[in-house]
Amino acid sequence: MNDFSVPTLQLDETICRTNIRRMAQKAQKLQLEFKPHMKTHQSAEIGKWFRDEGVQAITVSSVSMARYFAHNGWQDITIAFPCNLRESEAIDELAAQIRLTILVNSAETARQLDSALSNNVQAYIELDAGATRTGLSPTNVEEIERVIYFIQKRCSRIEWLGFYSHPGHSYSARSKDGIRQIHQSTLAQVKDLRQNLSIGDQSPDICIGDTPCCSVGTDFSGIDAISPGNFIFYDLMQQQIGSCNISNIAIAVQCPIIDLFPERNEIAIYGGAIHFSKEYINDSCFGYVAERSENHWTVPNRSTFLQRISQEHGIITCQPEDFERYSVGELITILPIHSCLTANLLKQYHLQSGNIISQWK
Amino acid sequence: MNDFSVPTLQLDETICRTNIRRMAQKAQKLQLEFKPHMKTHQSAEIGKWFRDEGVQAITVSSVSMARYFAHNGWQDITIAFPCNLRESEAIDELAAQIRLTILVNSAETARQLDSALSNNVQAYIELDAGATRTGLSPTNVEEIERVIYFIQKRCSRIEWLGFYSHPGHSYSARSKDGIRQIHQSTLAQVKDLRQNLSIGDQSPDICIGDTPCCSVGTDFSGIDAISPGNFIFYDLMQQQIGSCNISNIAIAVQCPIIDLFPERNEIAIYGGAIHFSKEYINDSCFGYVAERSENHWTVPNRSTFLQRISQEHGIITCQPEDFERYSVGELITILPIHSCLTANLLKQYHLQSGNIISQWK
Repeated sequence: MNDFSVPTLQLDETICRTNIRRMAQKAQKLQLEFKPHMKTHQSAEIGKWFRDEGVQAITVSSVSMARYFAHNGWQDITIAFPCNLRESEAIDELAAQIRLTILVNSAETARQLDSALSNNVQAYIELDAGATRTGLSPTNVEEIERVIYFIQKRCSRIEWLGFYSHPGHSYSARSKDGIRQIHQSTLAQVKDLRQNLSIGDQSPDICIGDTPCCSVGTDFSGIDAISPGNFIFYDLMQQQIGSCNISNIAIAVQCPIIDLFPERNEIAIYGGAIHFSKEYINDSCFGYVAERSENHWTVPNRSTFLQRISQEHGIITCQPEDFERYSVGELITILPIHSCLTANLLKQYHLQSGNIISQWK
Repeated sequence: MNDFSVPTLQLDETICRTNIRRMAQKAQKLQLEFKPHMKTHQSAEIGKWFRDEGVQAITVSSVSMARYFAHNGWQDITIAFPCNLRESEAIDELAAQIRLTILVNSAETARQLDSALSNNVQAYIELDAGATRTGLSPTNVEEIERVIYFIQKRCSRIEWLGFYSHPGHSYSARSKDGIRQIHQSTLAQVKDLRQNLSIGDQSPDICIGDTPCCSVGTDFSGIDAISPGNFIFYDLMQQQIGSCNISNIAIAVQCPIIDLFPERNEIAIYGGAIHFSKEYINDSCFGYVAERSENHWTVPNRSTFLQRISQEHGIITCQPEDFERYSVGELITILPIHSCLTANLLKQYHLQSGNIISQWK
């Protein structure tokens, strides 16, 4: 495990599989379809760990990522990103091979996409649960009905499936109670929308997708499917939000120590923005220094953290009493702030077994 | 040029070659060795554009990047990153092939590295000009002499070459005058150090490396070499610092527009943290919307900028009067905040000619 010479992403397979199993069992117990998001790990090999828990359908964030997972045997894929009309041809090709679901958020997009398709796709309309990113406001019933009507009456290749909601404002929560409040407001939005829609006896499928709500929520009434992604690894941001404990974090980055500065209580490491990304919490924390204990990582001292990063350099602020633990030429373990971005940069997972798992690109 | 379907990095070869030529000519005029940093572009093909300007020696930020450029014919390479002892073997292999220069900042690192080498390397001692990142304080004459003495008397494979200084605190400047002040303080540090060092009639080689000072400085007395990197593309951060004008920026990202929200003055694009990184300026600007005019990009309205990003989503805030310019399914051009990180994420450069240039990994 400890012969890495450059910043290296470690993956604890046991913690990761436990995270997958916990969410799969929760979905099963609540009779929710589990369509996990693959954007966090981006690996067909890790995708198999979901198959081991009975997962049949997955979610991705781009057409090219859908193509990769389709090529690796997945037959039911949702692209949880608003339809990019410039990829209509690629969407059509994919729709010929698998059961493909996309997000269509306007009649105009539906019109242009439909005219480009020769194969059938399913479409969710995305609801903006409050993150003000993409999707239609769930209170904008008139516009939602207009899109549904357009898809159902005017499109020949698009089948309206229901609603997709990613309440990304759950990332602003700082406790389980805070997450639950946002989750309950999403459930209420969906309930109200169902009541207000004039769609006869149609029963739209509802999928929600954020890791905080899927991790902490217990009431999923009115919801049919969940598609969280980050929960597979979790990270310090999720821990801060209230989605997980430190012991649930499945990845860490091993970095060589390149210099010690006891006179200013700092440690220089090989590990910077091209390894961690520039995501931070608490104003200037780009990661906590961690240790291994009882089969998971722990953070012995939250005052010892990655405080500044440039392209390859990282500077850790370290308490004086901790200094003697570290030596130039040794490795130091950093838990990442945002595992999706860190994994996207480092591309390869090193398991305890010595095996290496690669991402798709 | 306009058939991109996903976020795509465009490179203007003319602007880029002009940036290279300007810096090469400045170095020549000032009798400075020009050892450009390759970490910004990371491409052997673009490296050839430096050869076209007579460049013989280059700078890189990692051992593996040095290996790549050595494999592509570069025979004189400086790794401007503190020696990572865990890569001693790789350093030794490289030293057998090329003239290799590294940074050695302590006697202990020199001792361990020397014992691992069977080939000769040159070493700079890094000076911390004020960025408080890595290197020795130029006023810590005693420690600097100790490292020089150790390398010269106790190491058989390391030859002490001189000093390397990256005054990265120039990034906090906000005007050409601010940059010049930092530059002059670096020159003064080096001058004082030379006077205070007891090294007989040895004449250490001095290399400085940041884009702001190399772009704006006019006095380089006492300096032997420069190794800037970012200037090849520049970016909005460099423009804000005062290193360049918008018209010097050589890269831009073309992003598909996926939705328009005139009611909240926002545009949703396909383009997020895995394309731009999470570097920002002015609290929440992840890039300006640009247009093409007179063979370079311009920023028509600084109130139209990329304000929020998540993994693949970007949200642009747009002035009401600009809205009619944009349509779903069209492309929008974004100038990046930090070209090094954006290029590192996007990996490929699309030229106006239609040619595509790839990075090394």
